[in-house]
Amino acid sequence: MKVYLAGPDVFLPDALAMAERKRAICAAHGLTGIFPVDNHPQHPQAAGIPFWLWIYRRNEAHMRDADAVIANLTPFRGPSADAGTVYEVGFMRALGKKVLGYSNVAAGFLPRTLGFLGAAAQRDAQGRWRDAAAMSVEDFGLADNLMIDGGIHEAGFTLFRHDVREAARWSDLTAFEACVQALARSR
Amino acid sequence: MKVYLAGPDVFLPDALAMAERKRAICAAHGLTGIFPVDNHPQHPQAAGIPFWLWIYRRNEAHMRDADAVIANLTPFRGPSADAGTVYEVGFMRALGKKVLGYSNVAAGFLPRTLGFLGAAAQRDAQGRWRDAAAMSVEDFGLADNLMIDGGIHEAGFTLFRHDVREAARWSDLTAFEACVQALARSR
Repeated sequence: MKVYLAGPDVFLPDALAMAERKRAICAAHGLTGIFPVDNHPQHPQAAGIPFWLWIYRRNEAHMRDADAVIANLTPFRGPSADAGTVYEVGFMRALGKKVLGYSNVAAGFLPRTLGFLGAAAQRDAQGRWRDAAAMSVEDFGLADNLMIDGGIHEAGFTLFRHDVREAARWSDLTAFEACVQALARSR
Repeated sequence: MKVYLAGPDVFLPDALAMAERKRAICAAHGLTGIFPVDNHPQHPQAAGIPFWLWIYRRNEAHMRDADAVIANLTPFRGPSADAGTVYEVGFMRALGKKVLGYSNVAAGFLPRTLGFLGAAAQRDAQGRWRDAAAMSVEDFGLADNLMIDGGIHEAGFTLFRHDVREAARWSDLTAFEACVQALARSR
């Protein structure tokens, strides 16, 4: 089973080392990990197109080839997960692939969003939290926007949340390994 | 042609009024707008399942019914677009639907992310911007994470960026109408 390893891990200075750590955990459970920056035979180089578009096409090709995605949904520069990773979760759900994800921050979406908004968050007359533009804040006890938790749920899995110390937020693979185990068990 | 109207507009206090404004613009161009909170015949109520899961299933059903998506990708609580909307853009791209989007903030992803990071953003020895966790910042001159711009590009469209004054960020529909026009022309 081929697993697309989605996440902002690609932005790490040692992204390739992280790719190998994740790939080794997959291999230990009989799975083949595909990292976004891996070579793809149909997209060997960015010939005649912008570099970013080449990355896009290679990532799409990797996703179509894969049977599953394990997404690193740890909050990234705001209350939600990395936007590119979220796009890929939706993409894989639409293709009917197995969709799994994890976060290295256990706190839910509501408290994280309130922490982000600070004093700008206020309760309205009905008791619902709203931001400075009066836009409401989701309050379902989920890990992130309900579309993310929902897509993973509908694919038959759970979004694993596991608190790690902040210094280990982008290196701890405990929750990632829980996803790999759940995926391996689902075969 | 049925158009799914994705966006954080659902969080507005007058979300239903926004739905009708967008639907009227669609109708004026011969298109049928579907707002996420519209009723869906297969999902009339949240019977026996959590409310959030009912919303998820209804939204997925609306998307599968639609021929296209027009996504409000205006930055939302951070440098990127609303996570639920981004999920839906990826979902619709994977289904091969027409994918369009707009932002009411014209500034690119790099300057917006640097503004968000503030003093935490530093250039590394190669001149690449990195955050406090040493994670790099995308620098492709795009509107958001390359997966979002890429998905719209691959579907044959452009992510419309249109600056509006901050007070009109969630009400101005100039860029939305540009998407509707582009979609109507594509038939």
